[in-house]
Amino acid sequence: MAALFRGSRNLLKRWNKHVDLALVSSRSMASKTQVGFVGLGNMGNPMAKNLLKHGYPVIATDVFPESCKELQELGAQILDSPAEVADKADRIITMLPSSPNVIDVYTGPNGILKKVKKGSLLIDSSTIDPSVSKEMAAAAEKMGAVFMDAPVSGGVGAASSAKLTFMVGGAEEEFNAAKELLSCMGANVVYCGQVGTGQSAKICNNMLLAIGMIGTAETMNLGIRLGLDPKLLAKILNMSSGRCWSSDTYNPVPGVMEGVPSGNNYQGGFGTTLMAKDLGLAQNTATNTKTPIPLGALAHQIYRMMCARGYAGKDFSSVFQFLREDEGQSPTN
Amino acid sequence: MAALFRGSRNLLKRWNKHVDLALVSSRSMASKTQVGFVGLGNMGNPMAKNLLKHGYPVIATDVFPESCKELQELGAQILDSPAEVADKADRIITMLPSSPNVIDVYTGPNGILKKVKKGSLLIDSSTIDPSVSKEMAAAAEKMGAVFMDAPVSGGVGAASSAKLTFMVGGAEEEFNAAKELLSCMGANVVYCGQVGTGQSAKICNNMLLAIGMIGTAETMNLGIRLGLDPKLLAKILNMSSGRCWSSDTYNPVPGVMEGVPSGNNYQGGFGTTLMAKDLGLAQNTATNTKTPIPLGALAHQIYRMMCARGYAGKDFSSVFQFLREDEGQSPTN
Amino acid sequence: MAALFRGSRNLLKRWNKHVDLALVSSRSMASKTQVGFVGLGNMGNPMAKNLLKHGYPVIATDVFPESCKELQELGAQILDSPAEVADKADRIITMLPSSPNVIDVYTGPNGILKKVKKGSLLIDSSTIDPSVSKEMAAAAEKMGAVFMDAPVSGGVGAASSAKLTFMVGGAEEEFNAAKELLSCMGANVVYCGQVGTGQSAKICNNMLLAIGMIGTAETMNLGIRLGLDPKLLAKILNMSSGRCWSSDTYNPVPGVMEGVPSGNNYQGGFGTTLMAKDLGLAQNTATNTKTPIPLGALAHQIYRMMCARGYAGKDFSSVFQFLREDEGQSPTN
Amino acid sequence: MAALFRGSRNLLKRWNKHVDLALVSSRSMASKTQVGFVGLGNMGNPMAKNLLKHGYPVIATDVFPESCKELQELGAQILDSPAEVADKADRIITMLPSSPNVIDVYTGPNGILKKVKKGSLLIDSSTIDPSVSKEMAAAAEKMGAVFMDAPVSGGVGAASSAKLTFMVGGAEEEFNAAKELLSCMGANVVYCGQVGTGQSAKICNNMLLAIGMIGTAETMNLGIRLGLDPKLLAKILNMSSGRCWSSDTYNPVPGVMEGVPSGNNYQGGFGTTLMAKDLGLAQNTATNTKTPIPLGALAHQIYRMMCARGYAGKDFSSVFQFLREDEGQSPTN
Repeated sequence: MAALFRGSRNLLKRWNKHVDLALVSSRSMASKTQVGFVGLGNMGNPMAKNLLKHGYPVIATDVFPESCKELQELGAQILDSPAEVADKADRIITMLPSSPNVIDVYTGPNGILKKVKKGSLLIDSSTIDPSVSKEMAAAAEKMGAVFMDAPVSGGVGAASSAKLTFMVGGAEEEFNAAKELLSCMGANVVYCGQVGTGQSAKICNNMLLAIGMIGTAETMNLGIRLGLDPKLLAKILNMSSGRCWSSDTYNPVPGVMEGVPSGNNYQGGFGTTLMAKDLGLAQNTATNTKTPIPLGALAHQIYRMMCARGYAGKDFSSVFQFLREDEGQSPTN
Repeated sequence: MAALFRGSRNLLKRWNKHVDLALVSSRSMASKTQVGFVGLGNMGNPMAKNLLKHGYPVIATDVFPESCKELQELGAQILDSPAEVADKADRIITMLPSSPNVIDVYTGPNGILKKVKKGSLLIDSSTIDPSVSKEMAAAAEKMGAVFMDAPVSGGVGAASSAKLTFMVGGAEEEFNAAKELLSCMGANVVYCGQVGTGQSAKICNNMLLAIGMIGTAETMNLGIRLGLDPKLLAKILNMSSGRCWSSDTYNPVPGVMEGVPSGNNYQGGFGTTLMAKDLGLAQNTATNTKTPIPLGALAHQIYRMMCARGYAGKDFSSVFQFLREDEGQSPTN
Repeated sequence: MAALFRGSRNLLKRWNKHVDLALVSSRSMASKTQVGFVGLGNMGNPMAKNLLKHGYPVIATDVFPESCKELQELGAQILDSPAEVADKADRIITMLPSSPNVIDVYTGPNGILKKVKKGSLLIDSSTIDPSVSKEMAAAAEKMGAVFMDAPVSGGVGAASSAKLTFMVGGAEEEFNAAKELLSCMGANVVYCGQVGTGQSAKICNNMLLAIGMIGTAETMNLGIRLGLDPKLLAKILNMSSGRCWSSDTYNPVPGVMEGVPSGNNYQGGFGTTLMAKDLGLAQNTATNTKTPIPLGALAHQIYRMMCARGYAGKDFSSVFQFLREDEGQSPTN
Repeated sequence: MAALFRGSRNLLKRWNKHVDLALVSSRSMASKTQVGFVGLGNMGNPMAKNLLKHGYPVIATDVFPESCKELQELGAQILDSPAEVADKADRIITMLPSSPNVIDVYTGPNGILKKVKKGSLLIDSSTIDPSVSKEMAAAAEKMGAVFMDAPVSGGVGAASSAKLTFMVGGAEEEFNAAKELLSCMGANVVYCGQVGTGQSAKICNNMLLAIGMIGTAETMNLGIRLGLDPKLLAKILNMSSGRCWSSDTYNPVPGVMEGVPSGNNYQGGFGTTLMAKDLGLAQNTATNTKTPIPLGALAHQIYRMMCARGYAGKDFSSVFQFLREDEGQSPTN
């Protein structure tokens, strides 16, 4: 019903946009038709599985054929390129590592836009520069397709259990169509505004997350040095104004909480390299908009230094370890 | 009952410490005997009032006689110096602006320790350097008295409504005696460990608070520049990993929340100067313990720059205003 | 002679590159033929004048016709677009504010590359992202032309007195041809390496300059607060290891030196906005190459904050004023 | 002659100060009488030797008896405590690691002030907090003695070759008497102002030095990543506005210069721990005077992080190594 209503509301809007309405209607009215999926990495794979679980036929591709095996065994159809996927499916989700990959998958020689159908809905869940999202949206619009950015919050665990949060940017009248698919893969689907604002929201959140994490790490380290018990200090912070997600949900000090990477030698979780990448995106958008981000910029540099000093593969809460005095260590280079 | 029991438990401990036990017992057993209070400023005044409300006779003093008037009218006895207060009361609470004031009030020529009774309980709720707390405790111990540090979290409002949080450092066997009084003035009384750890916990909390506040301010500013609605962005952060006290309880962006200083041109609240002072204490303890605090150090510098640029008297959430582009402004010096 | 020799050396190289050799030879052998100049702003105008002084016929253009008047009166030919300049001159110098301008002037609809002659030498003296220089070089190469980046060190004064330093990136065999022209406008012409390295050298220098300037400003301010005479402190630093260009040549404290912007209320010199722009370029290249630049990143943020607080139009040494306590100032927004 | 004149000029001044004039005269008129020396570490030892070389009988002491052997063999008299030295010599130089040592050597139970002669000249060449220098000066004045702070610039090499720079704070009328001795140990003796300003000048210089060094390290690293040759980049910086002592005299990149620690795996030179200590002093004075030092504060944190990560014993130019990407390294804790 909602999809139908959305379709008819769109009718008027699209009339003015001179878009092929028949295709739009067919896409939105037959909601369990096949869905394309490009990018079957650590995140994309469980996301695509959740689409299958909800009864959507999935047509997928990935640059690494071996990444496609598991999904193929579960019934997905595997094709050779994004262009071929676009030839068969008019709703496509992409989940890729960084801006250049997104540019290639959409506008490259075998890219989606080479064969995209008019009226198609293209949803990119990669975390990239919002300006690239806008470029892709403009390129898609030229081909009569709709592009939305929908980056996620939550890691591999949330992807597997369909608990992701999607932050969606794009034309508001397309949000419900996007939400229909994204709801199969996430617990929250939030509309943020025009194209690129999904990325902006994601980038803003991760910048504040990085600041909170480093702040928590150095505060806990200072308190411990001053003679405070770490569990007690965490308890005090969490009932006071120092409280933040990194102190009460993902504490970086080993032994304070269970089930977090700090309790497992900083294995798993959200890697320092990925955080450094997201902070690089935040820095780019801040530089472009001439916005001062003093703590965000320093957080970026700290994660960059950590990558240079051997912490690239550890969870980003390992900044506690990086800052902790270790009298015995000598530099190895 | 609790006080009695505490008294008897202390008997054994104090025996070993060769302290005059008779006085200790008299202090703890007659709990509604008079309480001394030194420092009747914005915080001390409402705190002392709450002691009066709970039926404690209060004997008070302040360097500014006019600060004492209101309390005197409410029935408190006003004396001329901390020494005179110590001559009459064996439980004294001090609430002073900074370390030098505390040193003077305790060890100065008219200080508490000049006339302190053996077995007295001295509770300092000022926010000062933990090393000064330790010095005062040592000086008090020489006179046979007990010193505890008990700085507070919460501002004038929490002081008036007896909703403060006290972070208490000192001998554990004295904690209940301190709690008896502090509970009249606060909602939470947390034991942190040996003398100075109350200060350490307070300093740690406020450092993380400053980091979270600046981080929230620059994140919100960036998001707004990127086209996000501030209320929507706050909502997204608060349901995600960027969540912190400054984003969900004390948002620095005008219009996002009600009842916070950002909605009132940053009047009231917790002044930038006070935050700069607390960050200076954090920096001192970090330097002394050779602890790296990269974001805390930068937060300190930012609040210091704000003081230099005219924000000294505004609430510390005015960092949002400080970072926001204001094309029309020209420097006045 | 040198030009002739270079021409013959190029013959062999270019043979392999399948470039039209006749045109190359004609460009290099008749060295006082006309030179194109695009961008007659504060810097470009005096630079073009120096070419005229050295007897080169100049064919110029600028988006603002009024910028061309002075040069026209001095005998330069003014055309309507970069494309028209390229149609007449096979050696062209461009001096533009930022990357988008460069992209437009070279690759836009009326851009140089629309009508560039084969074998032309295109020298860009703008300060832009090295990656854009590389893109322009690749685009020029497709048209059979040679692109070199040659950003300058030194301001309007150095441009007027032909004392600029040029940092040149590009094919080494073209360096002498570039140097022939650049020597008319500058005192030093330094070959840095492949295309983009001129920009890289410029960006590196300005980043270290910004760090040295802010460092000098805060050090001088601290010393003054500690009771040191500013002139004496500058003298001590300059004979010690604290010495830097900002302390010994461009001191930011009013009264320490003569003939610098600090002695003239920070008028003239190198604007805070321009420094913020260059630091943005440094940050971009650092982010792209994953290089940690902790002080450079903070310097960028400080100049960004200064722009937000009304210092955009002042010389970049006004950071001394920005950091100095000014008790009387109240924020105006 | 100068000493004589100084003595007579002092006569008038001291008359007003009610100081024992006879002793002052005897000290200043017999200039090659014995000189006390407390602290025979890496710096103090060669400094005391230079006094011996200039014909001054030296009476010395150190907490570590073995540190005294070499000097004893050269003819110095070794005593057991600073007090005993003060009992025999009315001119004493102290060279100690940090503030607590200075406090102890002057005011401790066996300290200089226990037996200091009226009119004695006490010169402290340690690098300590200027406020401690002021306290020592006040304590010395109470005993009728004169205290001056005279910290040094230059390391062990400069101490051996008598090439140190002394930055001297204290009563101007005593400066010549101090200079007489200090000239035997250094090439420059600079009068900075009242007591403590010697320390202030030293601290300011080292803060700017640290900023320049880290700035040079990250700039060189960025340039190298961008494809510039390190030697060429250093040459360009050194002829441009990026020039500083760390770029032109003590370059941190291995292979750029000879005879500096970067060419010797960062052995020797000025240790990271010592720089961290000096930056801690700078931070303390800045916090106490409410002076913003954004880059100085971050430099402090970076050297603190380096100490935590195993660079404590390396020269402070090893920050280049700390920031450089090292893909192969994995953290060892």
